[in-house]
Amino acid sequence: MNHEEFRDFAKAAVDYVADYNESLRDRPVLPAVKPGYLAKLLPDEAPLEPDNWRAVLEDVERHVMPGITHWNSPHFHAYFPTSNSYPAIVGDILSSGIGCVGFSWITSPACTELEMITLDWLAKLLGLPEHFLNSSEGPGGGCIQGSASESTLISLLAARETTIRRVRQEHPEWSEGLIRSKLVSYTSDQANSSVEKAGRLAAIPMRLLPGDEECRLRGATLLDQVRRDLEEGLIPCALVATLGTTPTCAFDDLAELGPLCREHKIWLHVDAAYAGAAFVCPEFRPLMAGVEYCDSFNFNPHKWLLVNADCSAHWMKDARHITEPFRVERVYLASDQNKPKAERDYRHWQLSLGRRFRSMKLWLVLRLYGQQGLQKHIRDTISQAEYFHRLVAADERFEIPVKPSMGLICFRFRGDADNSSTRLLLDRLMLRRRVYVIAGAYRDRTLVRFVVCSRYTTAEDIDYAWSEITEVAGRVLRGEDEKESLAEEAAAEQLARLRIEEPLPRCRESDDESIDR
Amino acid sequence: MNHEEFRDFAKAAVDYVADYNESLRDRPVLPAVKPGYLAKLLPDEAPLEPDNWRAVLEDVERHVMPGITHWNSPHFHAYFPTSNSYPAIVGDILSSGIGCVGFSWITSPACTELEMITLDWLAKLLGLPEHFLNSSEGPGGGCIQGSASESTLISLLAARETTIRRVRQEHPEWSEGLIRSKLVSYTSDQANSSVEKAGRLAAIPMRLLPGDEECRLRGATLLDQVRRDLEEGLIPCALVATLGTTPTCAFDDLAELGPLCREHKIWLHVDAAYAGAAFVCPEFRPLMAGVEYCDSFNFNPHKWLLVNADCSAHWMKDARHITEPFRVERVYLASDQNKPKAERDYRHWQLSLGRRFRSMKLWLVLRLYGQQGLQKHIRDTISQAEYFHRLVAADERFEIPVKPSMGLICFRFRGDADNSSTRLLLDRLMLRRRVYVIAGAYRDRTLVRFVVCSRYTTAEDIDYAWSEITEVAGRVLRGEDEKESLAEEAAAEQLARLRIEEPLPRCRESDDESIDR
Repeated sequence: MNHEEFRDFAKAAVDYVADYNESLRDRPVLPAVKPGYLAKLLPDEAPLEPDNWRAVLEDVERHVMPGITHWNSPHFHAYFPTSNSYPAIVGDILSSGIGCVGFSWITSPACTELEMITLDWLAKLLGLPEHFLNSSEGPGGGCIQGSASESTLISLLAARETTIRRVRQEHPEWSEGLIRSKLVSYTSDQANSSVEKAGRLAAIPMRLLPGDEECRLRGATLLDQVRRDLEEGLIPCALVATLGTTPTCAFDDLAELGPLCREHKIWLHVDAAYAGAAFVCPEFRPLMAGVEYCDSFNFNPHKWLLVNADCSAHWMKDARHITEPFRVERVYLASDQNKPKAERDYRHWQLSLGRRFRSMKLWLVLRLYGQQGLQKHIRDTISQAEYFHRLVAADERFEIPVKPSMGLICFRFRGDADNSSTRLLLDRLMLRRRVYVIAGAYRDRTLVRFVVCSRYTTAEDIDYAWSEITEVAGRVLRGEDEKESLAEEAAAEQLARLRIEEPLPRCRESDDESIDR
Repeated sequence: MNHEEFRDFAKAAVDYVADYNESLRDRPVLPAVKPGYLAKLLPDEAPLEPDNWRAVLEDVERHVMPGITHWNSPHFHAYFPTSNSYPAIVGDILSSGIGCVGFSWITSPACTELEMITLDWLAKLLGLPEHFLNSSEGPGGGCIQGSASESTLISLLAARETTIRRVRQEHPEWSEGLIRSKLVSYTSDQANSSVEKAGRLAAIPMRLLPGDEECRLRGATLLDQVRRDLEEGLIPCALVATLGTTPTCAFDDLAELGPLCREHKIWLHVDAAYAGAAFVCPEFRPLMAGVEYCDSFNFNPHKWLLVNADCSAHWMKDARHITEPFRVERVYLASDQNKPKAERDYRHWQLSLGRRFRSMKLWLVLRLYGQQGLQKHIRDTISQAEYFHRLVAADERFEIPVKPSMGLICFRFRGDADNSSTRLLLDRLMLRRRVYVIAGAYRDRTLVRFVVCSRYTTAEDIDYAWSEITEVAGRVLRGEDEKESLAEEAAAEQLARLRIEEPLPRCRESDDESIDR
């Protein structure tokens, strides 16, 4: 493909993306395809000769789009947001177009330095402690990881090696293997699945400690368990505290946990993957009181801060805990360890050797929204969620067992002792594909988790979701079968499809059973 | 930013990328900035209010570009290629624009299914064993990871847990901690730094075994070490074999190593990060003889196969070894383990929970180059490298201690016993910034590693590199000081800069000392 063809193709793709965003509200948020639908539409092998780009772009709409769950639709209220924004998309165009790799400073100084600068911008914007700044005097700093899972894992590995080195000094007679077998780490039972998984990957048992009645991990609970573990001769190694848990967006109490971690030499990592973004607004910072005790802190600008995935911001109070134990040098990567701090080799800050120019999109988002634009985005989201909260609270059929937090409202049918009605509500909403919500849990109670996810969400979208939810809730409570109305609707859609003027798919004959639009 | 602004901004960025690619050959491949240059040009904080996109795009050229190492320049001959291509860039535009997350099938069926399909296309194109296909009957399959480092780490973790489970059955009286402390893994001393690092991350000692005179790891070497380890009561767990090592692009002998691994129940992972791409051409497949013994196989389409980073293809013979030990479920991720294979939840195949729509760019590259286009790209690269090889071989001043392999030629000054002249050659080439080559090593000899990296490379570019290398080599051998000529050149560049019409940078006054164009 030559330069001119690229210009045409890429601009057509840009228009496609803009058209897609403009049409997001009108697309069913959930796909109706069945597993294996795409294999029926595409050939078994790559084409021998080059295809035409126009054909490929048509196939995106025809074959790929029916299988997309629209995370940026204003009707998407599941999980947490995965943000994208126009400035971030352009950032990706630029970094893909430059295509450099930033594992060492010299392999692209701008890639390293823009990351150091934008992570400092971000840390200041969130009001994080000075020792996390790349521009600070000390050994701390920030970098971009691919995900919160990676950030948790790398912090846990740093904690593991740091603890082993410390214990070996205290007990030179113990083997490294013996010490490893005594390590134990902690998190709340509300933590994201990736935290428990990180424990398994790092081969450190991860104890899931119960939260209080508001699902927050408290100091007394941690202390209790640490004491029991110490009595059994185990070695407490790390605590992963969550600011904004996935089930209910609860905030662990850092002000209680932090001093305990310091006292017991436990590495304190904070997973603020979703809710960390809220700290761009000063009014939410009391929720991170105690952050000065953290050894590492992570949140995902690619969740609620308008940066496309992947962009997970990870700060360390003393980065040497990760750069030293896993440092491997080679002739072809030769570097001087005593070089200036600005000449950083970011490969030592992460699991992988290679790294893309991910700060470009972060830079564009910070510049093109500005601090005030980002604050407005956070406050708008929360205000939409509060509006939804008022709607639920005013409906006697529902109860709200846990306090709404940030953009998340959790509710369920009042008096639904065996959870069956709430589950039926969830199943039917899923079947209808007009809004996407998922199940949560508070103790033994099933919840409907409703999150404001899209940057396009307006009060009308909240009204739309509420009207859909209450309509389905009414049918569930009246014991009406959903199937009949769905059958009518399917027939109407079938009719509508017959009116499509250009019915032939590009790659292969469409399989009516596999795509049910 | 509204839809129309995005169209304008993104199209301007597309033109910028096309202009950049058109001008690649004329830009010095290496930047001349000093560490910390960018912090002097950018403000200390994000702007309060939104900036203008035109200003940002100007700053990219003015402040970012001077700090870029141009990996796709035809004068870039360092490391290995990090590919980008126009179809892949458009793939990124589309996947950024859609912005979905594919951790479960339902969170975007197309994201999961297109990955299953394109990984099969790729496996067939490379002639990999049937058991790696997602469409095969068995428990194997492929997925896209972020890097070869990640693929190695995840394979090693799978090997670790699989070995522990097996040994626990054989020795129920041994604790898990005891077994972990006995594990040992292997690779060659030519393996990439990320392999040794993976051992440290996984907490398994990684023995670096010597290669033969052609730098290949052979069966007898492995067997020797395994026997010694077994005698010491250790438990051999995994071998990471390399097809195309970083220093000299050597190919470990899978046909010898594979049966040994099978006999001793050692997990065999293949790191073919760079050279794996060559197997799209049938004539190179003898170099992977024995691949049927591998438990896992990885190569990076984002190196030599024209797909932008990150796209690392990872196949497992039995994926249950990774999906089962680290499986963590939650209410909000609920899934049925007995569901059809096509309804795959890829989160269990990787370290992280989140995952982007990375198969889109792979699909576009496969369709828009076609099988024949990709084969041509590989053969063209090798033929350019062969041309360079002939030039070096015909020059009596140089020797070629290791056989050229794929796109890599390693050479040095003949009779340079203490390596000083070769090192001086490398340093001076770096200082002049006209071509980018890095040091390699063969035993105690320093090498100049020359790789054909760019998809734009022509015979004229090889001539240009050769002329630059021989000019500098001549000066080194004649004992001439490079500084004088560089000083003259700097003065000329200074003059040229005075002719630039619009000298004011957007963010802050330019610092002449920090950017030395």
